[in-house]
Amino acid sequence: MKTISENRSFGGVQGVYAHDSQACNCEMTFAVYMPPQANDGPVPVLWYLSGLTCTHENAMTKAGLQSHAAEAGVAIVFPDTSPRGEGVANDDAFDLGQGAGFYVNSSEAPWKEHFQMETYLASELRDLVTENFSVSVHHGITGHSMGGHGALTLAMKYPGHYQSLSAFSPIANPTRSDWGRKQFTAYLGADESNWAAHDASVLLREKGWSGDVLIDQGGDDQFLELLKPAALVTSLTETRTAHDYRLHAGYDHSYYFVSTFARDHVMWHADRLKG
Amino acid sequence: MKTISENRSFGGVQGVYAHDSQACNCEMTFAVYMPPQANDGPVPVLWYLSGLTCTHENAMTKAGLQSHAAEAGVAIVFPDTSPRGEGVANDDAFDLGQGAGFYVNSSEAPWKEHFQMETYLASELRDLVTENFSVSVHHGITGHSMGGHGALTLAMKYPGHYQSLSAFSPIANPTRSDWGRKQFTAYLGADESNWAAHDASVLLREKGWSGDVLIDQGGDDQFLELLKPAALVTSLTETRTAHDYRLHAGYDHSYYFVSTFARDHVMWHADRLKG
Repeated sequence: MKTISENRSFGGVQGVYAHDSQACNCEMTFAVYMPPQANDGPVPVLWYLSGLTCTHENAMTKAGLQSHAAEAGVAIVFPDTSPRGEGVANDDAFDLGQGAGFYVNSSEAPWKEHFQMETYLASELRDLVTENFSVSVHHGITGHSMGGHGALTLAMKYPGHYQSLSAFSPIANPTRSDWGRKQFTAYLGADESNWAAHDASVLLREKGWSGDVLIDQGGDDQFLELLKPAALVTSLTETRTAHDYRLHAGYDHSYYFVSTFARDHVMWHADRLKG
Repeated sequence: MKTISENRSFGGVQGVYAHDSQACNCEMTFAVYMPPQANDGPVPVLWYLSGLTCTHENAMTKAGLQSHAAEAGVAIVFPDTSPRGEGVANDDAFDLGQGAGFYVNSSEAPWKEHFQMETYLASELRDLVTENFSVSVHHGITGHSMGGHGALTLAMKYPGHYQSLSAFSPIANPTRSDWGRKQFTAYLGADESNWAAHDASVLLREKGWSGDVLIDQGGDDQFLELLKPAALVTSLTETRTAHDYRLHAGYDHSYYFVSTFARDHVMWHADRLKG
């Protein structure tokens, strides 16, 4: 692991790091914010998964999470959204290939050689962060859009990995959306029976979720029909999974929306990770 | 209008009153809580509609609303849930007839002679309260179960009548529930086209709602399959109507649930009625 940069931020440190990933078979970059409380011992850690086209950098610079993390005493990890590099498969579309890993392990050429984001996040980067930063065993996970999909599905697929869960305008029912069907066909193949394990609205009914969930959604989100949050709320209700789903008038899909509600999410996780 | 009782409560007055209703063609009883702030001038008023089997009394004695109303400076009206008396039609079932008016105007015998709860609430009792109590032009509406259905549908049907809206575990999609189909058949007749105007999940798509909505639901509610809150959340999401829908683990359908979240609702209304 090598350090790309470290900057003092709200009394803590915002760092950017790179390492050779076994899972993704290429160099991967990620960012970690360590709050000032980490000087006194391990702190809980919140994973923030970003959306389509993003790197580790977008949320790090635009979501305003550091001030809330410093207030709550929580570390934040900002992974990249896909493998990257000249030798890594790509597509001209913004929503496939680099910047669009969809947090799955690909089984299909040409993607499978590098696109192993599920293993990368749930195992490799998790171990790397735990070994190299002063974080406790209490992990939470959140994300925006494609990253909200990643947060929801990883939390359900890896019981015990994450003790708290939230999402900003998640892709909530990808097996029934053009944000999902196209990518699952490419990464996972045409057999739709392999897709269900990567759709939060479907997966919840099989796997459940041991805690509660906070979901924020912009009422003027230009992608609402692709996100399908109501399908997820229906699954949450019918499985009687505690949740708070808020649709906020006037907010769109951007980081202006995410940053507005970022503090609520950090505090939601902090409350649950310190119990 | 005659006074049945008046009791000092949290610095204000909890009163119970009766009057001869034109709309329901019988004597009707209702309760009003006036907060101490009413001594200084008109206060906003929150209508609380109760559920199946209730009179004006259940929420008045069990929901704990008075302390919150006194804190917020809001009056609360507790209407009855149906016409009552020896000459009023009834049914042996708890969910039809007296105590189960469903907040509609009946067009069918033997109900239509007395069961005119929509007109009673939206016109007659509204005028009576406005004329006899120190309340402002700012009205909000909420309710529990059948009363949540009443609050949602009356708010949508009478634009301008109510400036704020919430519900506790509402009957949210009665045209597709045994809590609705049975009663609408009796009160409105077999022609289902007359039912849509009394189903919040359907009505919202036609009429909309000018504000936002708070909905609380118990996760252990024994009637969840009859209430169908997810249908309403789907309509709210697809019409991009701002809302906060919370499913709370472990809470059932009782007043223990209502009273737990009563303060949140009173403050939700107070914030919007004082603007």
